[in-house]
Parts: sequence; C-alpha cells; structure tokens
Amino acid sequence: MEDTNSRHTEKMRKIKAARDRMMQTKTEERGLIIVHTGTGKGKSSSGFGMIMRCIAHQMPCAVVQFIKGARATGERDFLQKHFPDACKFVVSGEGFTWETQDRERDIAAARNGWEQAKALILDPEVQFVLLDEINIALRNDYLEIDEVVDFLQTQKPLMTHVALTGRNAKPELIEAADLVTEMTLVKHPFRDGIKAQKGVEF
Amino acid sequence: MEDTNSRHTEKMRKIKAARDRMMQTKTEERGLIIVHTGTGKGKSSSGFGMIMRCIAHQMPCAVVQFIKGARATGERDFLQKHFPDACKFVVSGEGFTWETQDRERDIAAARNGWEQAKALILDPEVQFVLLDEINIALRNDYLEIDEVVDFLQTQKPLMTHVALTGRNAKPELIEAADLVTEMTLVKHPFRDGIKAQKGVEF
Repeated sequence: MEDTNSRHTEKMRKIKAARDRMMQTKTEERGLIIVHTGTGKGKSSSGFGMIMRCIAHQMPCAVVQFIKGARATGERDFLQKHFPDACKFVVSGEGFTWETQDRERDIAAARNGWEQAKALILDPEVQFVLLDEINIALRNDYLEIDEVVDFLQTQKPLMTHVALTGRNAKPELIEAADLVTEMTLVKHPFRDGIKAQKGVEF
Repeated sequence: MEDTNSRHTEKMRKIKAARDRMMQTKTEERGLIIVHTGTGKGKSSSGFGMIMRCIAHQMPCAVVQFIKGARATGERDFLQKHFPDACKFVVSGEGFTWETQDRERDIAAARNGWEQAKALILDPEVQFVLLDEINIALRNDYLEIDEVVDFLQTQKPLMTHVALTGRNAKPELIEAADLVTEMTLVKHPFRDGIKAQKGVEF
C-alpha cells in the first residue's frame, strides 16, 4: 500500500509538471463564441450556470430568451427577482413553434429578440450574453444565419462572451464558434412516462 | 407567403395535437438520478443551472463538491454568499488528483464528501442534491461504485433528485440513472492557446 501510494505520488507529480507546462502555453484571454447544441439535456441550464458564475465574478451579463418566452421558467423568475441589475433579462419568444402556430408572429418575435441581443452584445458594460434557444430561431429561418455569424465575427467586442444554445445548431455557427459542446441524449425519463419536473427542466 | 403561413399554421396545429397526446401519457413525478458525463463542457455548469431553478422554485437543495475543492469557484462563492440557507454547500475535494499528489488524502476527502452527501440525500427537507465531479472520485476508486449505486437505488427518498457529474461515469451508474446526458467536445479554445476564463469555466 505504501508502495502504491508512493507510485501514485510520483505519477501525479509528473502529470502536474506536464500539465503546468501545457497551461503555460494557454495565455490568451478573449471573449468566446460558445455553442451548446445536441438533443440532450443541459444546453440552457449550463448557459444559466455560466450566468451564475458571471454574477459571482461581478461581470455584468444578459440573457435573451428566444422561443421559450411564453412559459415562466425558474431561471427567469430567479434572475429577475434576485439580480435585475447584474443580469439584464429579455424575453423575446412567445413559446414553442407548435404553440404559437403563427409563423409571422414567430419571425417578428425572433427579429425583436435579435435586435435587443445586438444592442446587449455591443454594450461595453456587458461581458457575457446568453442567447437562449436562438438555434431554434435560426433553424426555422426566423433569423438569417449569415447575418448572425457576420455580426458575431465582425462586431462583437473582443472581450465579450456570447453563448448560443439550442438543438440543431447551424454548421456556419459551429464553424465560427470557439467552444462547441454537443449534449447527447443517452437516457431520458420521458420514455418511462415521467413528466418534465420543476427544478430539473424548468 | 399567405399560403406558406397557413400551411405552417396547419402543420403546427397537428404537431401540437400530437404533442399534447404524447404529454398526457407523461404523468408520473419522481425524484430522478441524473448523470452528466462526457469530455465536453457544461457538466457542472448545467448542474448549477438546475440549482438556480431549484432556488427559484423554493426547493431546498444542496451541493457536494468533490475533487474541485481547493480552488475558489464562482458558483461556490455565489451560492455561499447569496443563498446559504436555500442551498447547503459542502466542499470535500482538495483539488485535482495531480495537485494533491496524495492518494490517501484524496480517498479520505472523497469518503468524507460521500458521508455528507448521504446525509443530505436522506434529509427530508432537501429536494435536489448535486454531487459535483463525483464521477472522478468513482473513476479513481476513491469511492466504491456498488456502494453509491446501491444507496441511490435503495435509500434515496422517492421524490429527491440527485445529479452526479464528471467525465467517465461508470457503466453501473449509467445503468441505474433515469436521465443521462453525455457532453461531447466538438471544439475547444484551449487548442488555440486560450486559457480558462472566469464566467465561462469557473
């Protein structure tokens, strides 16, 4: 056991040295274009986890909620109640497309959200902007992907982070992004007749 | 365009009807075993996004942070400062394994974390428990997977949610879980020399 432990210590010492050398090459800081996509859970909630981190670090931040606007969500109630100054919150969506059943209204809502998103991204005070479910608006062609990517690449302030969530992220966005995670569904309780539950899903 | 819109409305009406029928079959509520794994980003942050939702819904919740304990994180500062009553926060880890370089101490820290985790899960007041990075402790055999799975399956109160995060989740845990998401790395800015940044990664 003593031997196992000392071998462990030696191995970890080497890993740490290698890691320290690697980390020394990671010196740049800049605002990232972050994409969370895929059919699994956690795309929006990890966006809100980053918002929590920003508030903790006193980095002014903002959320524009596309699509999901009609229904109250825990994260919106939470931020609007406790942190209205630290995190600006814009609701542009009016619900899932199958709920509004009105393409013109969906497009108008998405455009309105995008206009507000651009203003927040350009705001020099704001350091992190979460565009929640914007990928759905892009996928449905409520917004033009070229316009969004061009804006992020040419007008986003260097140090501002922008996170874009939603399944079916367009390839052009993935190409333009710095950090892309695909949330993959491995197992979902819906299959067993379990409904969406507060705390977990909204 | 008028035609496109009316076709859209009709299509969405059908989708909503099918969806409503499907949702009617989802009637059960119960506490879930939730796993976030994979090498991508968002495993911990989506756990903290769910904590935000729980606080919003006034569901008492708790976090036990395995492994990542040594370094201050935004989410820990945030919860300890703003919501010490709504969310109990236990730090058991003393850092990544390559930092502590002491297997015995890592094991003791993990065991201590697990003992506190069990007490929180059994606490009838607590409705959601996040075991952050516990998969690392399980992977390193600091904790026994059979013991953890057996406890979750036989002693977790029916309505309590437990979320377990960290890469390399053990197959036994995935088998036992209700909701499993794999965060898959598609693109990471480390490759371009960008370092971990506040708000995004801690």
